[in-house]
Amino acid sequence: MVLAVERRIGKFAVLLAMSNVQDEITFSLPEHWQTCVGKVGSMDSQKVVAAVETAAKRENIIKSDGYRETHALYHAIMDAMSGVTRGQVQLGSLMRTVGLRFAVVRGNPYEEVEEGDWIAVALYGTIGAPVRGSEHETIGLGINHI
Amino acid sequence: MVLAVERRIGKFAVLLAMSNVQDEITFSLPEHWQTCVGKVGSMDSQKVVAAVETAAKRENIIKSDGYRETHALYHAIMDAMSGVTRGQVQLGSLMRTVGLRFAVVRGNPYEEVEEGDWIAVALYGTIGAPVRGSEHETIGLGINHI
Amino acid sequence: MVLAVERRIGKFAVLLAMSNVQDEITFSLPEHWQTCVGKVGSMDSQKVVAAVETAAKRENIIKSDGYRETHALYHAIMDAMSGVTRGQVQLGSLMRTVGLRFAVVRGNPYEEVEEGDWIAVALYGTIGAPVRGSEHETIGLGINHI
Amino acid sequence: MVLAVERRIGKFAVLLAMSNVQDEITFSLPEHWQTCVGKVGSMDSQKVVAAVETAAKRENIIKSDGYRETHALYHAIMDAMSGVTRGQVQLGSLMRTVGLRFAVVRGNPYEEVEEGDWIAVALYGTIGAPVRGSEHETIGLGINHI
Amino acid sequence: MVLAVERRIGKFAVLLAMSNVQDEITFSLPEHWQTCVGKVGSMDSQKVVAAVETAAKRENIIKSDGYRETHALYHAIMDAMSGVTRGQVQLGSLMRTVGLRFAVVRGNPYEEVEEGDWIAVALYGTIGAPVRGSEHETIGLGINHI
Amino acid sequence: MVLAVERRIGKFAVLLAMSNVQDEITFSLPEHWQTCVGKVGSMDSQKVVAAVETAAKRENIIKSDGYRETHALYHAIMDAMSGVTRGQVQLGSLMRTVGLRFAVVRGNPYEEVEEGDWIAVALYGTIGAPVRGSEHETIGLGINHI
Repeated sequence: MVLAVERRIGKFAVLLAMSNVQDEITFSLPEHWQTCVGKVGSMDSQKVVAAVETAAKRENIIKSDGYRETHALYHAIMDAMSGVTRGQVQLGSLMRTVGLRFAVVRGNPYEEVEEGDWIAVALYGTIGAPVRGSEHETIGLGINHI
Repeated sequence: MVLAVERRIGKFAVLLAMSNVQDEITFSLPEHWQTCVGKVGSMDSQKVVAAVETAAKRENIIKSDGYRETHALYHAIMDAMSGVTRGQVQLGSLMRTVGLRFAVVRGNPYEEVEEGDWIAVALYGTIGAPVRGSEHETIGLGINHI
Repeated sequence: MVLAVERRIGKFAVLLAMSNVQDEITFSLPEHWQTCVGKVGSMDSQKVVAAVETAAKRENIIKSDGYRETHALYHAIMDAMSGVTRGQVQLGSLMRTVGLRFAVVRGNPYEEVEEGDWIAVALYGTIGAPVRGSEHETIGLGINHI
Repeated sequence: MVLAVERRIGKFAVLLAMSNVQDEITFSLPEHWQTCVGKVGSMDSQKVVAAVETAAKRENIIKSDGYRETHALYHAIMDAMSGVTRGQVQLGSLMRTVGLRFAVVRGNPYEEVEEGDWIAVALYGTIGAPVRGSEHETIGLGINHI
Repeated sequence: MVLAVERRIGKFAVLLAMSNVQDEITFSLPEHWQTCVGKVGSMDSQKVVAAVETAAKRENIIKSDGYRETHALYHAIMDAMSGVTRGQVQLGSLMRTVGLRFAVVRGNPYEEVEEGDWIAVALYGTIGAPVRGSEHETIGLGINHI
Repeated sequence: MVLAVERRIGKFAVLLAMSNVQDEITFSLPEHWQTCVGKVGSMDSQKVVAAVETAAKRENIIKSDGYRETHALYHAIMDAMSGVTRGQVQLGSLMRTVGLRFAVVRGNPYEEVEEGDWIAVALYGTIGAPVRGSEHETIGLGINHI
């Protein structure tokens, strides 16, 4: 099991989450990999979880029915939220809010076929007080086998 | 205080930490911003802290003497480590190791001059068991006023 | 102070929390030990705390007035919740819900009389998304001197 | 996806970890499920992780090569350690030690075949000061898709 | 950079937060240092953050506009809340409430002028169940460069 | 159960931990209360725990034999360490060190006799990089029934 250089699933997820039209970031995903992106802003951490999960199911990144893939995605989201919140996975209760762009990528980042599919969730945006501009950037990445 | 689109200090730090020669990621930092990059691999979280701090001081990103700037950098590193470790900021004691590339960026990401300098620390690489290949990617970003 | 084999207060609490009529688990508690069991399902961690505390007071496991025994029970519940939630002691704010059976046991698990009474709180059930079946089992045990 | 009453993988793991010859706990695992049990005592959390992982690989509960199953097991062990340590996943650095019996169970606890295999890690024993008898019981359970 | 004995900013903040008219605690702050004190009682951690921040801005301890000083104060409050809550920075969701007196002190606690201003936030009072008297004391201190 | 104004066990512990000869802090403890003070400096959190526990036993604040009182003291120390470390209860592994003065106080802070004895552990001093002067103050308080 070796991470293939050209199949860095986490890096792709982060680049997707950070991309916007002005950027000169160009990259091509491996064939057959699945991705979705979206946005969510909230003081309620539950809404971030729901936004990513809903998008991933709607775009068929994971199966809508059954628990297995939902469980894999959930823990990838939690890991990404750890990076965003750095310590306590709380937003409004600590008087802070986030404005995030998210990306979910599914594929096999290893050279061995038998490693199967993995899922990466990247969150990038701002965190800060509920006052316009009183915020700085934040990022989180969660990776799980699926 | 508004984050200027072309001065995303966290995004620049992340891109620097993720960059390598094959990449087609090109971006230009605002004038007078200071950066340094480096690598560290360890099962000892203390060594990651030391590697980033030593590089930042050697490259004059922060002042070598005095406590104020060291304190600002330390907490940015801790925040970045939270994203890398997602929960417990421990490596070897939880039987895991990291191989990281780090970037430190210093500059004012806001439109207002009076917001002064901020520092961003990005860590990107792999985390996993102390067995070659038994690892996946991880990222962390910490931002602090300096 | 030695834990007596036949007075494993934590084990008894766990077995009580996991028991149901179909089970072939039989065990007998030491004389004069006090127990209570109950159920609680919620997305609100506060409700789990309240359910255990109310049951323990109603069944006279702890004194209803005074703070001392309430304080001992509270921290045993918190420790049990740590096992159930594994990291962040949050439910709804992380978009998850629990369905738990709880047991509280009070007695002296040590061979020495002077170790006095201790209290064990066990929580056993399921944790998962607020969707029927999207859940797996979870357990927690807290033990405190009282 | 519904947890089948007679296939409670977590409950079986906990009962296995708590079992000893004097017990009158009898239960039968579903056909084709795999289990292993073992013991570990240490002030070093890394040794607990290693003991469980080594046993699970030696008994062929998980594949020895490849990363996917190791990753699933690792996070189940971490979750179980959270229950054992309740807060900070540290032992010696907080001047405490554990004496644990562990059980690993692999099987599908759901009624639907497509939920596939899951893994449960249970840890049961004592935690306390590094002085004989200065300890109380502790338990932890981690469950993951594999 | 050496902490000056007569300029212990944290000690002063703690003494201010703990002071009341009956006390025989007398101490004099260094010239030009700024302080404010106040009270807040709540089951909602967000209200504690807001009370301290509002007082500090109203009393001109920090600048009302701009993000830099607000960011410094926010993390000092979070550090103080860690001491008050000891583990999970949650109040009502863990069925507990606080009654706190707070103090904010701004000044340079070091012998070197170039260390500039630092801010100390002290919280002192009681934490416990939402029942009168079912509570014990608690304290927290956060210090940050500003 | 009401905290008596003149029996603030936590406040007394904090004042004792912060006292030195130059101070003009004078206060008198309730009759029959027991106290001890000491100092410890280390990058090893285990040594802080050991120093407080050893002093409390040597000064007969708690019983040297038996587990009950050791258990009560241990958790009071842990709570105090949470305030000192604010997040991760780690020192050297996060490249930081502490120089602390500690105080342990035992007595009944409530108006009701039946609330019995409680124990307060206060830690006050500095935390920072392992470089002289690169540090700021820190405090922690833990209170438990005993």
